[in-house]
Amino acid sequence: MTMPPAPRTTGRVTMPIQEGIDEQIRALCTVLGADAVRNSDGTWLPEIASELVDKVYSTYFPARGDQEFALAHPQTLVNQYLLSARHTALGTAALEIDVMEGYFRDQFAPHYERYERFWEVTDRTTGQVVPTENWQLDRQRGVVTIPQPTPWHEYTVAFLADQLWDSTQMYNYITNNWQDDPTRVKERPYDARKHPVWEHTRQALTDWLEAHPEVDVVRFTTFFYHFTLVFNESGKEKFVDWFGYSASVSPEALDAFEAEYGYALRAEDFVDAGYYNCPFRSPSPQFLDWIDFTSRFVAAKAKELVDIAHANGREAMMFLGDNWIGTEPYGKYFPSIGLDAVVGSAGSAATTRLISDIPGVKYTEVRFLPYFFPDVFNHEGGDPVGQANDSWLTSRRAIVRHPLDRMGYGGYVSLALEFPEFVQRIAQICQEFRDIHEFSGGNLPANAPFKVGILNAWGKLRSWQTHMVAHALWYKACYSYVGVVEALAGLPFEVEFLSFDEVLDQGVPKDIGVLINAGAAGTAFSGGKVWDDPRLSEIIRAWVAAGGGFIGVGEPSAYSKGGAFLQLSDVLGVDREQSLSLSTDRYPVVTADHYVSADLDSVFDDGQGAGGDVFATSAQILRLKEGSVQLAVNHYGSGRAVYFSGLPYSYVNSRTLQRALYWAANRQDLIEQWHTSHPATEVAWYPQVRRFLVTNNSYQAVSTSICGQGQTWQVELEPMGSCWMDVN
Amino acid sequence: MTMPPAPRTTGRVTMPIQEGIDEQIRALCTVLGADAVRNSDGTWLPEIASELVDKVYSTYFPARGDQEFALAHPQTLVNQYLLSARHTALGTAALEIDVMEGYFRDQFAPHYERYERFWEVTDRTTGQVVPTENWQLDRQRGVVTIPQPTPWHEYTVAFLADQLWDSTQMYNYITNNWQDDPTRVKERPYDARKHPVWEHTRQALTDWLEAHPEVDVVRFTTFFYHFTLVFNESGKEKFVDWFGYSASVSPEALDAFEAEYGYALRAEDFVDAGYYNCPFRSPSPQFLDWIDFTSRFVAAKAKELVDIAHANGREAMMFLGDNWIGTEPYGKYFPSIGLDAVVGSAGSAATTRLISDIPGVKYTEVRFLPYFFPDVFNHEGGDPVGQANDSWLTSRRAIVRHPLDRMGYGGYVSLALEFPEFVQRIAQICQEFRDIHEFSGGNLPANAPFKVGILNAWGKLRSWQTHMVAHALWYKACYSYVGVVEALAGLPFEVEFLSFDEVLDQGVPKDIGVLINAGAAGTAFSGGKVWDDPRLSEIIRAWVAAGGGFIGVGEPSAYSKGGAFLQLSDVLGVDREQSLSLSTDRYPVVTADHYVSADLDSVFDDGQGAGGDVFATSAQILRLKEGSVQLAVNHYGSGRAVYFSGLPYSYVNSRTLQRALYWAANRQDLIEQWHTSHPATEVAWYPQVRRFLVTNNSYQAVSTSICGQGQTWQVELEPMGSCWMDVN
Repeated sequence: MTMPPAPRTTGRVTMPIQEGIDEQIRALCTVLGADAVRNSDGTWLPEIASELVDKVYSTYFPARGDQEFALAHPQTLVNQYLLSARHTALGTAALEIDVMEGYFRDQFAPHYERYERFWEVTDRTTGQVVPTENWQLDRQRGVVTIPQPTPWHEYTVAFLADQLWDSTQMYNYITNNWQDDPTRVKERPYDARKHPVWEHTRQALTDWLEAHPEVDVVRFTTFFYHFTLVFNESGKEKFVDWFGYSASVSPEALDAFEAEYGYALRAEDFVDAGYYNCPFRSPSPQFLDWIDFTSRFVAAKAKELVDIAHANGREAMMFLGDNWIGTEPYGKYFPSIGLDAVVGSAGSAATTRLISDIPGVKYTEVRFLPYFFPDVFNHEGGDPVGQANDSWLTSRRAIVRHPLDRMGYGGYVSLALEFPEFVQRIAQICQEFRDIHEFSGGNLPANAPFKVGILNAWGKLRSWQTHMVAHALWYKACYSYVGVVEALAGLPFEVEFLSFDEVLDQGVPKDIGVLINAGAAGTAFSGGKVWDDPRLSEIIRAWVAAGGGFIGVGEPSAYSKGGAFLQLSDVLGVDREQSLSLSTDRYPVVTADHYVSADLDSVFDDGQGAGGDVFATSAQILRLKEGSVQLAVNHYGSGRAVYFSGLPYSYVNSRTLQRALYWAANRQDLIEQWHTSHPATEVAWYPQVRRFLVTNNSYQAVSTSICGQGQTWQVELEPMGSCWMDVN
Repeated sequence: MTMPPAPRTTGRVTMPIQEGIDEQIRALCTVLGADAVRNSDGTWLPEIASELVDKVYSTYFPARGDQEFALAHPQTLVNQYLLSARHTALGTAALEIDVMEGYFRDQFAPHYERYERFWEVTDRTTGQVVPTENWQLDRQRGVVTIPQPTPWHEYTVAFLADQLWDSTQMYNYITNNWQDDPTRVKERPYDARKHPVWEHTRQALTDWLEAHPEVDVVRFTTFFYHFTLVFNESGKEKFVDWFGYSASVSPEALDAFEAEYGYALRAEDFVDAGYYNCPFRSPSPQFLDWIDFTSRFVAAKAKELVDIAHANGREAMMFLGDNWIGTEPYGKYFPSIGLDAVVGSAGSAATTRLISDIPGVKYTEVRFLPYFFPDVFNHEGGDPVGQANDSWLTSRRAIVRHPLDRMGYGGYVSLALEFPEFVQRIAQICQEFRDIHEFSGGNLPANAPFKVGILNAWGKLRSWQTHMVAHALWYKACYSYVGVVEALAGLPFEVEFLSFDEVLDQGVPKDIGVLINAGAAGTAFSGGKVWDDPRLSEIIRAWVAAGGGFIGVGEPSAYSKGGAFLQLSDVLGVDREQSLSLSTDRYPVVTADHYVSADLDSVFDDGQGAGGDVFATSAQILRLKEGSVQLAVNHYGSGRAVYFSGLPYSYVNSRTLQRALYWAANRQDLIEQWHTSHPATEVAWYPQVRRFLVTNNSYQAVSTSICGQGQTWQVELEPMGSCWMDVN
C-alpha cells in the first residue's frame, strides 16, 4: 500500500505490532507518529520493536500467564460464586437440583471444599436458608437433594465453583476460533491467595523481566480477579458484569475476611438472589466491606509487582478491564499501587473521561475502537473507517475537556494494513489528538464556576461509571440514563460523584452548584430504600431551598411512601403515577418556550422515558407526551429544579442538559459567555492561551457562529471537523 | 318529522319524556315500541304519560329531593373526608395550611365539630401523626398552623368537610349552565344518619307517592351517599372515583362504627395518603370494615324505602350510579334491599354485564348512550347516530351473553326528535334487542364447560368492575387491562370474580378452569403485598400443576422478592425486568405460529404494555417487541399458563384471549365446536332451541363462515349486522 505522508508532529501514540511484517510496521509507525508499540493477547513482539519507537509495551498476565504452573497446581484455581437455576418443588417429592444446569462445563466445575460452610440452599418463596442437615450433596453428579422440601416453594443452591478457564481468554478463544489452532490451550487462572501462587507470581515476573530486556512498559492485563463473565451450556455469554466481584472469592479469602471483620460472609452476600451485586443493586454493607477487603488485598499485592517492575527499571501500566477487580481506580487504595499508567478502551465519552480523570498515575492512555479483529476488518460489510470515526467523535468531546496523555489501537495490525483508507484516517486522528495537547498549551479549558454533583449509591468510587453493565455497550434499559454522564463528559463542568452516605454524613459539598439524581426506581442510581430515610430529603430540600439546583432524570428519589412516589416530588414539582392516583384529574399546560428548552424541537426524545406516566404537581411543563411530563422546571425556595423523564445522549439533549444546569444554578448568563449557535458544535475556551477550539460533533458540514469574550466568529466546519482560533 | 313504521314487536323499552310535546312523544313511543317512560334530572312527566305506556318511572332523590328541608336543617349536610394540599416546612418557621386550598368553596366548607377527634395532621416525610396539642386551628380562616414543624418535612391536614352541594346536581348544573335558569337552586344533600333526616325521608316518600299516583316505578336516584366527586377551585373536576366512600362518613357514622367494631377509624383510614381508597389500592382491613358497615346501614334504610313503595303498590328501581355508595350490587347485603329492578348506564360490554348479572332483582335495565344532551345533539359536529351505534355495538356482545330485561335512553327527548335518522336507528336497535329475547326463547347461549376466575383484591364484590375509575371512561393507564373483562363480557365463558382472601381461605373453586390475574404492580388488581404471603403462591402453583390454567396480564403477581418480580414467574415462565438483572443475557426465540396466536397479525397491540421489559425464563415466546415479551405460553406440571403484556380490547385481542383460555384449560378442541372464520364476528349457540346468532362487531360488511355441530354455514353480514340461523 502507499502510505500517507509523515505527520507534522509525532508522539503520544501506541501502535499494536506483530511478527513477520517488519517493513510495513516501520512505515506505519512513521505515518502515525507512533512512539510506542505493544503486543496483544495472541500476538508477539517482533525483534525490531525496540529500534522503532521510544517504548515497547508488553502484555503481562499475572493470573494466567504460566499454564505449566496452573496445570501443576490445580488446587489454586480461582473460585467463583454461582447460583443454580430456580426450581420449584412440584409437590412433596424430593427436589433435586443439578447445580451446573445452564452453566458451561468447560468454564466451571463445582468446588466442594467445606461445602457445608460455603454453599447455601435457599427457599426463595420465604427467603429462608435451608439448614445443611435438611439437604444432601452428591459430589459425583453435582446434585443437591432436598428430601423434604416445602411443596410449591422455589429453591436455589448458591455454590462455589472452580474456574477452569480464564474468562477473557475463553472469550477470545471462542470468538477467534482458536480451537483450530494447536498452539492454543484453554488457559486456567490461578488465585494469588492460594499457596504457592504468590511466591510463584513474584518470581515469574522477575524471571520474565530478565528474559525480556526489550520491554520498557509492563502492561499488566490485569492483576488477579476477573470481572464476572459467565457462559452458558452452549458456550455463549450468560451473565456479564464489568464490575462483578463474584470471581474474587475463595475459601481462603472468606476465612481471612471473617478473621479481620469479625463476621462471616454468606453465599447470599455474593449471589444476591441472582443479581450478584450488580451496580444497579443498592450495595449492602457486606458487599461494601467485601469491596474494601478485596481492594486492599489487590492493591497491596499489585504494588509488590509494580515494585518489581520498577526495581528492574521498567514502567508499570495497568489495563483497565479483564482481571481488574479490586483495582477500582477511584477507590481509596488505588493510588497506593504506584502504577505509572492506566490504559483502557474508549467506548464513549464517559468511558474516556473515566480513564482520563483517574488520579494517582503519571499518565493515561486510551485504546480507540475498532479493535483490529476480523469481525470489523473484512471486506464483506466491515466498516473500519466508520468505526474509527464513531470512536473518535464520541471520545473527542471527553478528550477536549480532559485530555488523555496517550492514545493507541489494538489487535492484529496486519488486518489494518489491508485498509489504506483506514490507515489514512487514523493518521489524521493521531495528529488531531496531538494538536489538542500542543495548541492548548497543556491547559484545561475553562469550566462553569460551579461543580455538578451526581448523586447515587456509589459516589466517587464509580465516577463516570453509572448505568454501565458491560463497559460501554448499549442497553435499552440504560441509554436514557447513560446520556446524562455521556453529555457531562464533554460539557464545561467539573463533575463530582457523590454517594448518598457521603451526603447523609457531610451534607452537600459547598462547591456544588447543581445536584443530579438520575435512574430507575429501586436501583442504586435512583437510590431505592435510601429515600426512606427522611434525613436525605431534609438535607437536599434545605440545600435546594437555600439556592441550590436539583436535576432529576427518570425516577429520581423514587420510593413509594406517604402518598408520593418521588420523595423529592415537592422539589421537582412532579411525581410519577403508580396507578394509584388515577382518580385525580390533571390539567397539564405546556410552556413550549423556555431558556431550558430553547434548543429542543417540539418533540423531545426521552428514550425509554420514566417507566410510567409523570404528572406535574407544581412544576412548569416544557414538554409533554401523551399526557406524561417529559421535561419540567420548578422553583423551590430560593432554588430551582429541572425534571427530565429520560435523557439519551444526542447533541441536542446534551445542549439541553447544559442549559438545565445553568438554569438550575440560576446562572443563565453563562451560556452567553461562550456559546455556539449550531447545537452540533461545542466550544472550549483556554483562557491561559486566549484560544478556543470549536468542534463539530456531527457527520455533516455545519456553519456556526461562536460568541465569547464579547466577540463573535463565524466558522464553517467539515464533517467531524474542528478549528482552533486565537482571540485578541 | 316523518316517523319510521311501527315495529314488528313492542315492549322492553323505556323512553325519556318531557312536558309540552305530547303528540311527538306519542308517535315516538309507537316507533320504538316503548312500554315505559321516565323523566330525568331536570325534566318533568307530562300528564299523558300514563295513557301512553304500561309503566311510568319517576326519578326520586332521597338524599336531596327536598331543598326546603335541606335549607331548614343545615346541620344535616353530608360530610366528606378531604386531604389538604401537601406543604413542606421550608425551615423552622411555623407552617400554615389553608385546608380548602385547591377545593371548590361552593361545594365544600370545613366541618369543625370535634375536629380534635376527626381531623389529622400528618408528617408525610415520616408518616407520623402530629399530636393535636402540636397544631392549632383557626376556624375563621380554615387554617391549620403547626408552630414548630420539623424543618423540611411535608405535612398534610386530613379534615372533615360539609358538602354544600350535591355532586351530581352540581355536575349537571355546571354542565348545562343552569346558573342562567332562575328556577334552579344548588341542591344541598342531607345525611340519612343525621336527625331528623330519616323520619323526614320516610314521610316525604310516603307523601310523594300519594301525590303521584301516576308513577308505577320509583326510580331511586339513588339512595344516600354519592360516590367521590370533588371539584377544584375553578369549579372543574379535581378527583373522581365512582367507587369512592369518602362522602359516606360523618361524626355520627364514625361513632356508630366505633361502638360496633370496638375500634375507632382515623382520618387516615379515609384519606389514605391522598389515594382515598380508590379501587386500585389494595383495601385495608379498616376500609373493608367500613364498606361492610356502610353497606349494612344503606341496605337496611333503603329496604325501608322500598317497603314503603311496595306498600303503596309501586315498584322500586335503583339507578346504579350517583348516590349508589353502600349498594354495591354484588355485595352480600344488596339482595336484602328487596329492589324490583336496577337500571344503569351502558358504557362498555363490561358495564353492561355488570348490570345484567346483578343478582337478587326481578329485572335489569340499561340506558344506552348517547344521553340526549346538547353536547351530542347539536348540528355543529354532534354525531348522535354514531354514538348510538358505538353504544349498541359494544353492549350487544354482553347482551347476547346475558340479556338485560329492558333497555332505554335518557335526557331531553325534544333534542332527539330533531334528528330523524337517529330516531330511525334507535328504533332498529330496540327491535334487535327484543329479537334477542324472542329468538333465544329466553335461554342463555352455551358457555365453555369450565369457569374463568378473575383473581384480584376485590373478588365478587366488584364483579365486572375492574380497572374502572369513572364508570366506563377511557384511561391511558387502564385500557390495557380493561380489555380483559371487556373481552370476557362477550365471550362464551361463565366468569367468577375471586378475591385473594377467598382463594387463601378456600383454595381455587372446583369449577374454575382458568384463573386470570391482570393488573399493574402494586395495585389491588395485580395484588401488591398479598404476594408476599407464600401461601398464595403455593395454592396457585399446586392448582396449576394439577392441570389448571393461569393467565397473567401486565404485571401479574408482582412483588419484588427473592430474586423475582413476578412471584408466579415459575408458573408463567416470564418475569419482568427491574433494571436489576440487566447483567443476564437473554436469547429470546419467537414462535410466531401457535394455537393461541392464530388470529393475531405479526404485530400484537398490547396497549401500554407491562411497565417494563419482560423476559422469558421458561416460556415459549409468541410475540416480542423491542426485546420485550408481549405474549408467551408455558407448561407447568400438568397445567398451562399464558402471559400477555397487555390486552386492550379489540376483536382480534378478544379472540386471542378466547384461544388463550381454551389452550390454558387444555381444551383447544372447543374453538372448533363453535367458531367463526372472521375474527370480527362472534357466534352464540342456543342448544335448547337449536339456533345460533352470529354478530358482526365491526363497522364493515364481512363474510364469515360459521362451524358448529359438524356443519358449516357461510354468511354475509352488513356493518354491525347480525343473523339468526336454525340448525337442523
